[in-house]
Amino acid sequence: MSEPRDELRNRAAGGRATSRKRTRVLSFEEDAARVRSDQLATEEPLEIRLFAGGRSKTLAVTMRTPGADFELVAGYLHGEGVVTDRRHLTRLRYCTDPELDAAQQYNVVSAELAAPALPDLPGLDRHSFTSSACGVCGRASIESLEASGCRAVPPGPEVPAEVLLRLPATLRASQGIFDSTGGLHAAGLFTTQGELVCLREDVGRHNAVDKVLGWALLEGRLPLPDHILMVSGRSSYEIVQKALVAGVPVICSVSAPSSLAVDVARRFGLTLVGFLRDRRFNVYAGADRLRARASVGDS
Amino acid sequence: MSEPRDELRNRAAGGRATSRKRTRVLSFEEDAARVRSDQLATEEPLEIRLFAGGRSKTLAVTMRTPGADFELVAGYLHGEGVVTDRRHLTRLRYCTDPELDAAQQYNVVSAELAAPALPDLPGLDRHSFTSSACGVCGRASIESLEASGCRAVPPGPEVPAEVLLRLPATLRASQGIFDSTGGLHAAGLFTTQGELVCLREDVGRHNAVDKVLGWALLEGRLPLPDHILMVSGRSSYEIVQKALVAGVPVICSVSAPSSLAVDVARRFGLTLVGFLRDRRFNVYAGADRLRARASVGDS
Repeated sequence: MSEPRDELRNRAAGGRATSRKRTRVLSFEEDAARVRSDQLATEEPLEIRLFAGGRSKTLAVTMRTPGADFELVAGYLHGEGVVTDRRHLTRLRYCTDPELDAAQQYNVVSAELAAPALPDLPGLDRHSFTSSACGVCGRASIESLEASGCRAVPPGPEVPAEVLLRLPATLRASQGIFDSTGGLHAAGLFTTQGELVCLREDVGRHNAVDKVLGWALLEGRLPLPDHILMVSGRSSYEIVQKALVAGVPVICSVSAPSSLAVDVARRFGLTLVGFLRDRRFNVYAGADRLRARASVGDS
Repeated sequence: MSEPRDELRNRAAGGRATSRKRTRVLSFEEDAARVRSDQLATEEPLEIRLFAGGRSKTLAVTMRTPGADFELVAGYLHGEGVVTDRRHLTRLRYCTDPELDAAQQYNVVSAELAAPALPDLPGLDRHSFTSSACGVCGRASIESLEASGCRAVPPGPEVPAEVLLRLPATLRASQGIFDSTGGLHAAGLFTTQGELVCLREDVGRHNAVDKVLGWALLEGRLPLPDHILMVSGRSSYEIVQKALVAGVPVICSVSAPSSLAVDVARRFGLTLVGFLRDRRFNVYAGADRLRARASVGDS
């Protein structure tokens, strides 16, 4: 499994942005209270700046857990359609502007584009996918995905139900290495044989997914037709949309999907699995990819 | 406890936006699979439009669970500092534009401001609180709260630990009435005696908080010095910031707080409680408000 490389680089450079912080808490249990030490998941803003054709602009500021920042930026840009290929990204670097103090210098990442000019992205933020031109509803959100070039993923591969049943334990075991705070979401990329390829964590579920898919982009691995994306928590529209753009055909979550997540998965031929825990799961879309030994009954 | 009134109004008006949708799922347990019916939490975009001085503009598009939409908009506007008093909001209504089809007409809410002109809000979105002028780091985020007028909340009230220990059960019991999907976050406003005053749910945790605090704004109840805000899941910077703006001195969450949530709570004199479940909790800030019968030991 890969390490978050820029976290290591970050640490090596003496960056102050760590993914955990120690603090003192007062712990109550029934009527007894005691002071003890606890670890918190770090939450810090990250500013994403774009550079192209000698000009720059701030694209977004997102709250995230420091670590794997370059992957987060790469995944964010890919998910938003700003880059569709790793060659579109010339360089990613921390903006060590002398005007920024030590606490800030690892909170600004500059992405240099190969494009001759900055893309025209009016008001791009995480919620900007719908415009008044295409209306405001679930159907319009799906149509805007089609308008941006998203197409149904091809059929296959076959995934044994047993592989899915093992994913939560693998994710938890690997997450345990990183997460001592209880406050981090995880996203894991698995092969269809259930092997963990990449795990990333963040206070934000979307960020964890961006880090994983950004890692795949930077490694030149996109699209990912023979892979499974598993997320802690729920799966929303944005999670499914990111998987679709990266070509991941199977998405699993520990908790429930939203209605729009299901609609998008059905429209684009994705397999969407929810409540994957305690040796059971529900399939909301794309059940044809799953192979079980048992017969299927209709209750 | 109050009902989400505009949800009722919405239903009475024949609005198509419901908070739950029924679907068919394939349910796997070990190697057995069966088809059954399931409920999904609805996720649909909501466009927030501002009207003032004869002009209008789209402020944001957010993914949310339909229901209590006016409260969501009111809470969002208050949290972002666009309105600080209910009298600043002249009218909230669905934008039943004849150009919008039935699926869309309950996904656009217009907020009419008493102000003579639209506020100058360049690029306002959920992540816009930091500007390059104030830097990009946790400390700068806190300073920008001060710059926007946030002040430390006054000391008090005293809250018995026993009241906090009972909150999760009350929240779960009341949430069960609404949530049959397993996919909704909840936010509850309680008195310091532990009485539930308002509960709202949403696929987004921030939206659930906006709905609760928007309800309080529209009811003329802000600020809320004698109240507790409890959220499912984790507490992040944004959750604590919203509580601060609404003057709620005690914030509790079922899971962990982030580092920046703790920093903001400590800076502004808020009580921040995490891991409130199974008859225990941790206090990360403002422990002076808590009253326990037992003595406090240092381990």
